Amino acid sequence: MPKVYLDYAATTYIDPRILQKMRPYLTTGFGNASSLYSLGRQAKTAIEKARIDVAKILGALPEEIIFTGSGTESVNLAISGIAKKYKNQGNHIIISKIEHKAVLESAKKLKKEGFTITYLSVDSKGIVNLKELKKALNKKTILVSIMYANNETGTIQPIKEISQIVKKFRKHNLLPAFHTDACQAAGALNLKINNLGADLLTLNGSKIYGPKGTGCLYINKNYKIEPLIVGGTQEMGLRAGTENTALIVGFAEALRLAEKLRKESQRLKNLRNYFIKKILKNVPYSRLNGHAQKRLPNNVNLSFKGIEGEALVLKLDQRGIAASTGSACTSSELTPSHVLLALGLPEDLAHGSLRMTLGRKTTKKDLNYVLKILPKTVAELRRISAL
Amino acid sequence: MPKVYLDYAATTYIDPRILQKMRPYLTTGFGNASSLYSLGRQAKTAIEKARIDVAKILGALPEEIIFTGSGTESVNLAISGIAKKYKNQGNHIIISKIEHKAVLESAKKLKKEGFTITYLSVDSKGIVNLKELKKALNKKTILVSIMYANNETGTIQPIKEISQIVKKFRKHNLLPAFHTDACQAAGALNLKINNLGADLLTLNGSKIYGPKGTGCLYINKNYKIEPLIVGGTQEMGLRAGTENTALIVGFAEALRLAEKLRKESQRLKNLRNYFIKKILKNVPYSRLNGHAQKRLPNNVNLSFKGIEGEALVLKLDQRGIAASTGSACTSSELTPSHVLLALGLPEDLAHGSLRMTLGRKTTKKDLNYVLKILPKTVAELRRISAL
Repeated sequence: MPKVYLDYAATTYIDPRILQKMRPYLTTGFGNASSLYSLGRQAKTAIEKARIDVAKILGALPEEIIFTGSGTESVNLAISGIAKKYKNQGNHIIISKIEHKAVLESAKKLKKEGFTITYLSVDSKGIVNLKELKKALNKKTILVSIMYANNETGTIQPIKEISQIVKKFRKHNLLPAFHTDACQAAGALNLKINNLGADLLTLNGSKIYGPKGTGCLYINKNYKIEPLIVGGTQEMGLRAGTENTALIVGFAEALRLAEKLRKESQRLKNLRNYFIKKILKNVPYSRLNGHAQKRLPNNVNLSFKGIEGEALVLKLDQRGIAASTGSACTSSELTPSHVLLALGLPEDLAHGSLRMTLGRKTTKKDLNYVLKILPKTVAELRRISAL
Repeated sequence: MPKVYLDYAATTYIDPRILQKMRPYLTTGFGNASSLYSLGRQAKTAIEKARIDVAKILGALPEEIIFTGSGTESVNLAISGIAKKYKNQGNHIIISKIEHKAVLESAKKLKKEGFTITYLSVDSKGIVNLKELKKALNKKTILVSIMYANNETGTIQPIKEISQIVKKFRKHNLLPAFHTDACQAAGALNLKINNLGADLLTLNGSKIYGPKGTGCLYINKNYKIEPLIVGGTQEMGLRAGTENTALIVGFAEALRLAEKLRKESQRLKNLRNYFIKKILKNVPYSRLNGHAQKRLPNNVNLSFKGIEGEALVLKLDQRGIAASTGSACTSSELTPSHVLLALGLPEDLAHGSLRMTLGRKTTKKDLNYVLKILPKTVAELRRISAL
């Protein structure tokens, strides 16, 4: 039985070239980067080189890059960091309804502490309503956080337009700051800060063939934030804890390769379009969720009438296909996807979702195997549920 | 020139046996542990096995173990987690003056939010004053946090006595909770929760030949805490972010080996005693900091009159010896060690400190090399400072 992994948006394997770069710091180069002696300084040098590399890719300054332990941690640091630093200047935060749980839960936590949260709605394709954004901005707004590309549907947001709206509103002030969660965008979309206009930006290593446990937060030098994890003075005092040289080096290499391999996107886009077209044709009562064009090159998100997404995922797994209903981070909840509900899907269609995300190892042969299995499996499940 | 690493308390190399256990999860076993398909479930199984292993070593329940990204993160989670959960029942926290910066800064952050902090003093050997503890406990005390063994001087605290005092005070209530930072204790001291009586306990992987970026927090099942990093429902909702299978498996294996190799402690103790005796004999105006007996088997902390610790560390590095002045986490600060000042050392002696911590690869030959170099180097620096 073939094995077809189609959940690259959940996590990727580590590219062997990246593991190779990490290896010295998993073996001989184990020094504590905060130590004064040469073994420590070597680690520090590797980390600072990684910081320069990441900064260059974003078009940022090295001192604007904070290495963290995950995309989720970066998002928490960005949102609570800005909220706590600028709370005397306002208590209003704007996010969208389709953010990742890391953003939603960060906002919820702040709500309990007295902040007001506005949740922007999205249209049926998953694009954030910019008129609502304009209307929601007020003098008390200190932060706007809208994701670059959605992790479930792959819908790409007009980040540049959003940052322009935010900047136009604030005129020459610093607030509101604009944060974008770009965890799904790296390797597929332009990450240049100047192009995006973001003041804070979150990235994650484990979605771009880098190691798990890595992320970074870009923070424009004009902003200060409160740290989330305190203690030692690592990461300019913004993230305490012994620097993880191997993971940091791996993250930077992953980002470098992701940028270098952005041409891969065209291959994925072709595969994706072929795959979507075939599925919609071969599976009755199926629909594509999200925007047909403004979507990540590797994302396929569908709903099948009359079936449960979880059942489909388990059946496909038995046939060698790894896919998901949506976000892995919410897989333990049995509620339908908040993203699909925000797009206006009725509950039953939101329950019947299947996300398949392609990656560097995905071939047309893989997809043809899925095209053989999927229609049968959907039909089978429908028969069962009809009983 | 020989290379002698004597900073095992700052960080250790990764034991190849541990890296070997991690390898599958850095390569083929890369699935997201929250995913429903088999590749994800395999990762989940590995993590839950690691949780059971760690729980067994501590004599705890698996559901009492939360995996985090560092010792520092565990400490932050413990202190802010308890403080925020029980803030309606009190706002008083007791710590000692010699805690790691992770504890000190966590307390400082809470102080800004309206909590009251009592800092217990220590005697000249670094043992926490238990009379002060008894006096400080009051109805508003929700948390006591005292480290198991000090990272700079290696002084071991009477954790059992401390937990008994706390428990006697609280009678049949839950509060105050007692947290101990045991980052330096693993592999050297008894970690059984029943023996220690701690309600929360922090461990760290990168001090026990495990990977950096790993830690865990034990939380007695009777306590609830507020998470620090929110988002997905990983780690029972207490630590969001994709589970880092490789690091978690590595951490558990590191702890398992550390427990298994506790007999190594006697070897280290013998080496340590030999080393201390020789240095005190061969270097005039030198003194041992901390307790001569109640100290970690691998810790040597000395002060040399008339010299700067940093200068000594750099000179030793030129001669192949990696040592430190104290904590790596505070190495970017040029203030003398807060631990040594708490022991009552005058500023100049606190400035002239040298910490050498032994480990699995340390041999008598290594120490003899240091014994040849150190007296000369101290004399040299004294000549310079006398000019």
